[in-house]
Amino acid sequence: MQIYADNAATTKIAKPVIDAMAACMEEVYGNPSSLHSEGQRAAEVLAGAREITARSLGAEPKEIIFTSGGSEADNQAIRSAALWGKKQGKIHLISTAFEHHAVLHTLEQLEREGFTVTLLPVYEDGIVRAEDVRRALREDTALVSVMFANNEIGTLQPIKEIGAVCREAGVIFHTDAVQAAGHVKIDVREMNIDMLSLSAHKFYGPKGVGALYVRKGIPLFSLIEGGAQERGKRAGTENVPGIVGMAKALSLAAEKLEENGAYEVKLRDALIEGLSGISHARLNGDRERRLPGNVNFCFEGIEGESLLLLLDAKGIEASSGSACTSGSLDPSHVLLAIGLPHEVAHGSLRLTLSPENTMEEVEYMVKEITGVVEYLRGMSPVWEDLEKGARKHVI
Amino acid sequence: MQIYADNAATTKIAKPVIDAMAACMEEVYGNPSSLHSEGQRAAEVLAGAREITARSLGAEPKEIIFTSGGSEADNQAIRSAALWGKKQGKIHLISTAFEHHAVLHTLEQLEREGFTVTLLPVYEDGIVRAEDVRRALREDTALVSVMFANNEIGTLQPIKEIGAVCREAGVIFHTDAVQAAGHVKIDVREMNIDMLSLSAHKFYGPKGVGALYVRKGIPLFSLIEGGAQERGKRAGTENVPGIVGMAKALSLAAEKLEENGAYEVKLRDALIEGLSGISHARLNGDRERRLPGNVNFCFEGIEGESLLLLLDAKGIEASSGSACTSGSLDPSHVLLAIGLPHEVAHGSLRLTLSPENTMEEVEYMVKEITGVVEYLRGMSPVWEDLEKGARKHVI
Repeated sequence: MQIYADNAATTKIAKPVIDAMAACMEEVYGNPSSLHSEGQRAAEVLAGAREITARSLGAEPKEIIFTSGGSEADNQAIRSAALWGKKQGKIHLISTAFEHHAVLHTLEQLEREGFTVTLLPVYEDGIVRAEDVRRALREDTALVSVMFANNEIGTLQPIKEIGAVCREAGVIFHTDAVQAAGHVKIDVREMNIDMLSLSAHKFYGPKGVGALYVRKGIPLFSLIEGGAQERGKRAGTENVPGIVGMAKALSLAAEKLEENGAYEVKLRDALIEGLSGISHARLNGDRERRLPGNVNFCFEGIEGESLLLLLDAKGIEASSGSACTSGSLDPSHVLLAIGLPHEVAHGSLRLTLSPENTMEEVEYMVKEITGVVEYLRGMSPVWEDLEKGARKHVI
Repeated sequence: MQIYADNAATTKIAKPVIDAMAACMEEVYGNPSSLHSEGQRAAEVLAGAREITARSLGAEPKEIIFTSGGSEADNQAIRSAALWGKKQGKIHLISTAFEHHAVLHTLEQLEREGFTVTLLPVYEDGIVRAEDVRRALREDTALVSVMFANNEIGTLQPIKEIGAVCREAGVIFHTDAVQAAGHVKIDVREMNIDMLSLSAHKFYGPKGVGALYVRKGIPLFSLIEGGAQERGKRAGTENVPGIVGMAKALSLAAEKLEENGAYEVKLRDALIEGLSGISHARLNGDRERRLPGNVNFCFEGIEGESLLLLLDAKGIEASSGSACTSGSLDPSHVLLAIGLPHEVAHGSLRLTLSPENTMEEVEYMVKEITGVVEYLRGMSPVWEDLEKGARKHVI
């Protein structure tokens, strides 16, 4: 059995998306900035995709900037809000301890440039409190950035409440919705969101394409300077076929949002229940307030990488955390943020499901993971110590 | 007859490139950073594309960073070299007056941040002199950036000579080769190039993909922060199918570089000769030292936009200059840089050819352009003044 259970890292692009992109590449090759017919055809296609993208978020077309992906969108949103704040003497930025590195590393860089950053706690359940945001606000706060759903443990944040706190205080609110867009309902108006990042390859769209929503009236500065594309906010010839693919993927996602979500929840809950049968296993993140397809466990006495390699040999493709940090030996900053000790954070397993997964696969995964955990513990001196009582179990 | 003669704006993507991308999207959907088999398959494909990209420039695979296009590559190269210079107290940047806006606007931004910029002249022939570069060098020069071929008038620059001057002085040399890559031979070692930007959609590859070559030993800073992709120099999940498409396009270009170049030169020279028959017409840029497919004329007494619209109605898709500035009413900064007066710079026509164009098309274009220029001049009060001697002809 071959099971792809790493959909938070990237998804398998949908066939209708590939077809839409191939058709676009064959038929619409102009540069949307060109005045001639071929260029104007490309400009129309681009406008159509922008309309779809905007509608999927409850936004207006002119509030959408196309980017090369979620990381670029996060970088631009945060840098831009920081720069705008600085012009008004505001140099305080608020975010959380478990953001994606596209957010955290940008904040670290801004700190080196003179900004002050407050990272809010996310508690054991992996959920930020709107009240904490309110308490952290200062006179000189330029931006609050809180992710919509965490990329490792899938916990959904109280975005609407946080947005309301920010709106009341007149502070720009950005959310990295890379893991959420196309998977859960998002309405930027209703949720008081000023800026939002998304990435197509996380919802069965193409790699190399993303979008940044920026509420009208919020100033935006360029990250990439040059031509006047995207109303002067993002230079470079637009990736028309990629953008068309993203719009197609968003349309497909919207059509089946509830159906797919309910199906994934069923699989997810069965997987969580099955894996909870393993001794000294712990589900990371809130049991209910998480993405429909996200399962994240720690198994005490286990080293994450060995677990992944053995599972891969059995046809189960999973991850220990974010793909973006998979080369790193450091334990996940997300798991540390929810209070796990270093040695436990090393033994994490993230399984992220899609509508293509089946209950049969879930049963296979429960059986094989249980076996592999047992096998690895049998070889582990740490586990031996734990069982002998020479060390204390923490989960 | 329908003639696409705006290949400097963007090219029609080659069918084998579309096929390679579609196959990649169907078969290789993993995230190259993932440790499991699907991820490793993607990582291998990525490595293969990096090898091809590097080889096409005479570089090594680890000297290639994939980006979302030429603008991003230009921004990163220039910002990075400036930042590196600043750390050593070097705040002087040298470039030319007719660079692409991805370079010029980045330099303007750096000027606002405290750098000093020298823009070299390009003379009437549109060619930078290596000797001028040498004279402009200062103790605190951090970077020289000179484009390989101009995007409007197609003039080829003495890159090897400029590179030698920079190498001797120990100054980083970047070249924006967006118009040149895939069209003329480039060897970064032989040409003393430290950094080079390219963009796939300019050589029959996909939009939204580019590369930055950075010679080993030259430090590079990130423009987009986040995950550790591209050896920590460019965050964001790699656009694997787009990168595969770019590598395919580079391979196709390399196979037929001389053949295609010779064919385009034949068409180009016939087009130049034909259009030279129009009175008070002027070829912009050096007659010989220009891209094989580039033709750029000014017709006195003509307004560029009207010319384009009438030509489009006759099936000829061309441009007045860069697509990136086509919404702008300002005359081309390139044409001003080669000394054209404002009123003449407004009447420019760029025709950029591909191997798909034919001699029959060239003959059609000469006939129709001649007719349209005559027609527009018949309606133009400016032309009437010129013919009456109330104004002086400048060409």
